[in-house]
Amino acid sequence: MVVRAAVAGASGYAGGELLRLLLVHREVEIGALTANSNAGQPLGALQPHLRPLAGRVLQPTTPEVLAGHDVVFLALPHGQSAAVAEQLGDEVLVVDMGADFRLKDAADWEKFYASPHAGTWPYGLPELPGGRAALAGSKRIAVPGCYPTAVSLALFPAYAAQLAEPEAVIVAASGTSGAGKAAKPHLLGSEVMGSMSPYGVGGVHRHTPEMIQNLSAAAGEPVTVSFTPTLAPMPRGILATCSAKARPGVNAEALRTAYEKAFADEPFVDLLPEGQWPATAAVYGSNAVQIQVAYDEAAGRIVVISAIDNLAKGTAGGALQSMNIALGLPEDTGLSTIGVAP
Amino acid sequence: MVVRAAVAGASGYAGGELLRLLLVHREVEIGALTANSNAGQPLGALQPHLRPLAGRVLQPTTPEVLAGHDVVFLALPHGQSAAVAEQLGDEVLVVDMGADFRLKDAADWEKFYASPHAGTWPYGLPELPGGRAALAGSKRIAVPGCYPTAVSLALFPAYAAQLAEPEAVIVAASGTSGAGKAAKPHLLGSEVMGSMSPYGVGGVHRHTPEMIQNLSAAAGEPVTVSFTPTLAPMPRGILATCSAKARPGVNAEALRTAYEKAFADEPFVDLLPEGQWPATAAVYGSNAVQIQVAYDEAAGRIVVISAIDNLAKGTAGGALQSMNIALGLPEDTGLSTIGVAP
Amino acid sequence: MVVRAAVAGASGYAGGELLRLLLVHREVEIGALTANSNAGQPLGALQPHLRPLAGRVLQPTTPEVLAGHDVVFLALPHGQSAAVAEQLGDEVLVVDMGADFRLKDAADWEKFYASPHAGTWPYGLPELPGGRAALAGSKRIAVPGCYPTAVSLALFPAYAAQLAEPEAVIVAASGTSGAGKAAKPHLLGSEVMGSMSPYGVGGVHRHTPEMIQNLSAAAGEPVTVSFTPTLAPMPRGILATCSAKARPGVNAEALRTAYEKAFADEPFVDLLPEGQWPATAAVYGSNAVQIQVAYDEAAGRIVVISAIDNLAKGTAGGALQSMNIALGLPEDTGLSTIGVAP
Amino acid sequence: MVVRAAVAGASGYAGGELLRLLLVHREVEIGALTANSNAGQPLGALQPHLRPLAGRVLQPTTPEVLAGHDVVFLALPHGQSAAVAEQLGDEVLVVDMGADFRLKDAADWEKFYASPHAGTWPYGLPELPGGRAALAGSKRIAVPGCYPTAVSLALFPAYAAQLAEPEAVIVAASGTSGAGKAAKPHLLGSEVMGSMSPYGVGGVHRHTPEMIQNLSAAAGEPVTVSFTPTLAPMPRGILATCSAKARPGVNAEALRTAYEKAFADEPFVDLLPEGQWPATAAVYGSNAVQIQVAYDEAAGRIVVISAIDNLAKGTAGGALQSMNIALGLPEDTGLSTIGVAP
Repeated sequence: MVVRAAVAGASGYAGGELLRLLLVHREVEIGALTANSNAGQPLGALQPHLRPLAGRVLQPTTPEVLAGHDVVFLALPHGQSAAVAEQLGDEVLVVDMGADFRLKDAADWEKFYASPHAGTWPYGLPELPGGRAALAGSKRIAVPGCYPTAVSLALFPAYAAQLAEPEAVIVAASGTSGAGKAAKPHLLGSEVMGSMSPYGVGGVHRHTPEMIQNLSAAAGEPVTVSFTPTLAPMPRGILATCSAKARPGVNAEALRTAYEKAFADEPFVDLLPEGQWPATAAVYGSNAVQIQVAYDEAAGRIVVISAIDNLAKGTAGGALQSMNIALGLPEDTGLSTIGVAP
Repeated sequence: MVVRAAVAGASGYAGGELLRLLLVHREVEIGALTANSNAGQPLGALQPHLRPLAGRVLQPTTPEVLAGHDVVFLALPHGQSAAVAEQLGDEVLVVDMGADFRLKDAADWEKFYASPHAGTWPYGLPELPGGRAALAGSKRIAVPGCYPTAVSLALFPAYAAQLAEPEAVIVAASGTSGAGKAAKPHLLGSEVMGSMSPYGVGGVHRHTPEMIQNLSAAAGEPVTVSFTPTLAPMPRGILATCSAKARPGVNAEALRTAYEKAFADEPFVDLLPEGQWPATAAVYGSNAVQIQVAYDEAAGRIVVISAIDNLAKGTAGGALQSMNIALGLPEDTGLSTIGVAP
Repeated sequence: MVVRAAVAGASGYAGGELLRLLLVHREVEIGALTANSNAGQPLGALQPHLRPLAGRVLQPTTPEVLAGHDVVFLALPHGQSAAVAEQLGDEVLVVDMGADFRLKDAADWEKFYASPHAGTWPYGLPELPGGRAALAGSKRIAVPGCYPTAVSLALFPAYAAQLAEPEAVIVAASGTSGAGKAAKPHLLGSEVMGSMSPYGVGGVHRHTPEMIQNLSAAAGEPVTVSFTPTLAPMPRGILATCSAKARPGVNAEALRTAYEKAFADEPFVDLLPEGQWPATAAVYGSNAVQIQVAYDEAAGRIVVISAIDNLAKGTAGGALQSMNIALGLPEDTGLSTIGVAP
Repeated sequence: MVVRAAVAGASGYAGGELLRLLLVHREVEIGALTANSNAGQPLGALQPHLRPLAGRVLQPTTPEVLAGHDVVFLALPHGQSAAVAEQLGDEVLVVDMGADFRLKDAADWEKFYASPHAGTWPYGLPELPGGRAALAGSKRIAVPGCYPTAVSLALFPAYAAQLAEPEAVIVAASGTSGAGKAAKPHLLGSEVMGSMSPYGVGGVHRHTPEMIQNLSAAAGEPVTVSFTPTLAPMPRGILATCSAKARPGVNAEALRTAYEKAFADEPFVDLLPEGQWPATAAVYGSNAVQIQVAYDEAAGRIVVISAIDNLAKGTAGGALQSMNIALGLPEDTGLSTIGVAP
């Protein structure tokens, strides 16, 4: 199979990471690369690490440019995907790496994104219960947010196995690439190096309803989520510390068993041996998820830690994994579980 | 007043930070500096940033060397302070920057430190209710742990005002200096740069009972604590994300009011204006604590963020603040609320 | 003495560092703080580490606002200082932290800054031969560039002692704060963390003629300078590696002696003991300069390494040191040689 | 072809990087993995990023364990390779990633390594003049040092084209992984983050004679090298700033032409478009070398900047590239020019 793929939004971090992965995907041929303000520039000036594509010139994001591809990846700012997708035709696989089609509840969308709800597409997190079935053969995929990827994988087994009370508390640290490539003063190297700081505190971060959607589906009942994201002095990586009160009768063994069962056949989930803890460095550039669980008996809480690369499994790698499923390719085609460390 | 101060353990990070602060404390004259394996070396070889003391030679930690001082600071590994303190005499102010005398409950000590309980000294966190009274005139001070400092200051007002349910969930990120200067592979720059990782997960970190002690005292009832520490790629700083379920009837205004009241007269606590969030960079090298609170109505939780410099307010600055109180000096003598940023 | 000081450009990195130092300068009272686009904002929103000034509101940079001060510091973009200085009157001490008045040669200025030459003020590097005499009593001071500070202090003794051939080769690494607070994509944390990169290669960096001016003056003959600046993944600090061919007959002893003599009475220059090398961490936040020299016999070259804090000794600390001299205050008033480390 | 490869020294940084690359080399089957003090441990505990090998147990480095492989990579401390190599038989390809067989001059070896010279093997830098011919079919390969790789590639074209005077001045910044995984205090994260510092100044670094050997060969006359290495706050990467006086008559065009010619057919050398400069982030995890040249007319010097990943092209990637040549495989098998950025 040769899959011809276009990338709309190739000059940003998500688009760049997608290209890094597509370059080694043996079934994909890279087609049009588009941008908005950067159209007309060679990719090498904007993504100097993608040497084989250095001479490719960015085109404007128009229907004509995007036509004639089997897959179109949208790495666009929130709210722009629907208009582009409509022009692409139903036979094209459209993979939206933005938020536009993630939420099922229009009210949630409107509350958190302050714009009209565009709809809901099959959700690109194959590891969730029913996740692969929803993606197989689909022509539209909504790639999950980076935080919801890390958090949902960490907690859904506890909820699916009815081990946890429906009130999750999550604190996650993200590398700065999660905030994108637009130059803002608080994202300057001078500001972020040597500093940890929170943002979107108190339930206002846009990824919160997406986590609630995923965890509630796993639990079969509404789950509340207290989510605090923090910015860490590193370019990539998310470390999510997720906890919930244990249901009566839960113990460490039951917890471990539930996680071993949930991830027994997952190619990208690395439930670590007991005593070893996740580290974002270990999944740098990789599509793997490292997970470890603990039962804090004194506090009566289940604590689950997950580590992902926010740009890889958290965005572009997750997008490719779902594309593979949608196209009927082996799920791990072009995806690695080997990190670049130290 | 001229206070003659000795520092036992001057070659480590806590001892070095203490000396940095003592050098600008106008009432203190720096006396003996001791070390164990580094005795005999000039301080300049081990603490090259402390230029005015570069030529001072480290002495062994003996009663003779420590004799003749008004204050002796102990920056020793856990379990070594009691033996040294006994030799110093009751008229000397002994400030223990280790853990030995922090916990009131011997069983807690034995469980978390696996050694006999040495006793309990007045606790050096002046901002806690009754904190200053316990320190005034005291000849023994137990300096709090760095995490308990950040966490207790963040949550005690909510507990003292009966706003929070007695189950606290805390995730904190610390700079690497909190792990000390002993060379261990997982603390190498190659390992920590670009990585976030947890440790001591599941209620096993030694600072957990200290937090429970402080928060339970503030609440007037037992508080459970789920505490997860993480290692962040920065040399200094702690960012603590602390939350608890709100009691019925709590709202954002009540929460803000409780914190404004608790910290109205505190020289080192910076309850930030609404909309501004703590950052460890802003308290780099300073004795200030930045705090911000939020009420997450959907999750029904109080979320409090605090940022400190783990070596300053979290260790050496806190030690000096308590020393000032014990000696009857103005509490802020030699202490600054100005950070070194960016 | 109470010196009333205004700071024009208080929202940037240089202005912020100056305020950090002025806050502990016992003879200075901080007067007007001005900004351009940030005028009207409280300083606490822009410089959250300067807690004692958090409530001060930035004013526009006008003659009226700047009137009535004993000293006015200009931390403005290049080319703006002359117009402001003209309005201030000859009796006011004006300290320009920009480049406008550093170069003596108008042709150099025009070539490197592409604008008309504003003139030349006494140069604020007291450690240079004749440096203090030029500053004493002066009402105008041109603060040196950060790189020229590190480089000139490293090499002038070798040139003054006629030990080095007049062709200097310099490679320096700077922390990102040297590039200022304006948000540019290549200065994002995501870009700079984990990366070293050069800029201004091939003799085009604006600090090159300033180095040539200083070294030629020390040598008594024209010195050429090959200067390559690099951006390092750290917020602060300059490490300059400076070398030149040794003149015939030079040996290690002669070199060491020349440096010991040059810096024997310098309060801020720390010529390190043999075997110890400079590190930017050791001068973090301090006005100290660490210097070490080596003679590479096989290559026939003198190698000198210097480390400074680019914002402190390299900008704001150097400005204060020169101000102290100009006003007849003890030179080290308000300035520290103690770094914040680790 | 199936090449069965053993790695002696699989628990260190060089060994780990080699395994990361071997895992995606389609002609290689990974055989024995050995270690010294870490023998008996699962690789997953020491190299958690190499998930597909997590369960492999490290064996002791003995002839029996290393027997039966087509290729044996030695990632051992200096001085240990000769003894192991002797036991392996002449039909086995032995690739030494240590220094033991790099230097041709026994006196150089003895001076810089203070031990008897083991001999000289074909040198694994294919891009040097005659480099590939020396490697084709060879059963022994000496992998170059990381600094000599970056420096030799940067300067050999200038010397080979007789453009540069035979006195090179080099300042290079390296990530901390270059110093290895042994825990030493000065390599702690607390020490290296936020700091730049030099080491091995004055011609004493062991890589100096290797650079001299390579550059002298290219020039056809003895070249002196003044080399100053510095430690940068990043895990990986070398940025080398290399300069030499231009010979009479040299200009920018001649310089550019020489470099374009030297690298026209090199698969891993990325001579950047004019105006773009190397950055270590762009080659993170990649086997590419970024190079840019400038002619500083005022100083009369050629300035060449190169960026590599010290563990990839600088060690393990270079080793694989040479192995491919020795075995008659396509030179880029298993090697990528795509960096992991940001």
